[in-house]
Amino acid sequence: MIHILASFKVKNDKLSNFISLCNELIEESRKEKGCISYHLQQNTEKENHLVFVEEWESNEAIEQHNASRHFTRIVPLLVEMCESAPIIQTFNKLV
Amino acid sequence: MIHILASFKVKNDKLSNFISLCNELIEESRKEKGCISYHLQQNTEKENHLVFVEEWESNEAIEQHNASRHFTRIVPLLVEMCESAPIIQTFNKLV
Repeated sequence: MIHILASFKVKNDKLSNFISLCNELIEESRKEKGCISYHLQQNTEKENHLVFVEEWESNEAIEQHNASRHFTRIVPLLVEMCESAPIIQTFNKLV
Repeated sequence: MIHILASFKVKNDKLSNFISLCNELIEESRKEKGCISYHLQQNTEKENHLVFVEEWESNEAIEQHNASRHFTRIVPLLVEMCESAPIIQTFNKLV
């Protein structure tokens, strides 16, 4: 199982639009083969700091996700609404 | 539900000891009231970058966790084994 943490610092005036698009992305992503879970979390102290917390069955599933129509359409729009480049990190569960 | 991401950059020669202590911390923390899940994840590209991914029922449960005997004993030892101060962030699930 592979975990992804994808962290976004959203421009304050774009926050509502950003979250709406995330809802679309999540709805489609959860239907994908190999997607175990896919959530959006908001930092309790910085409302413009949003993190996708994702679990995938394999690297192959992540590659298919990254090439999917919803991902390639929506993610560039999300990035445009950010103050800085997102930070995407992948993890293996140790414990 | 409150989520915590607690990120540690561990000194390379301390990694094995760090993970052993994390196992103790996780075993005790999972027994606590209000702990929904508590995992340790390792960055696939930087083996010394470890992140606790936690889910708690409430802020009260987190306060009790932070005051628990295992937390107050083990976490300072973990911090000593790191290159820099850990980054602890709390989140609410949006989607």
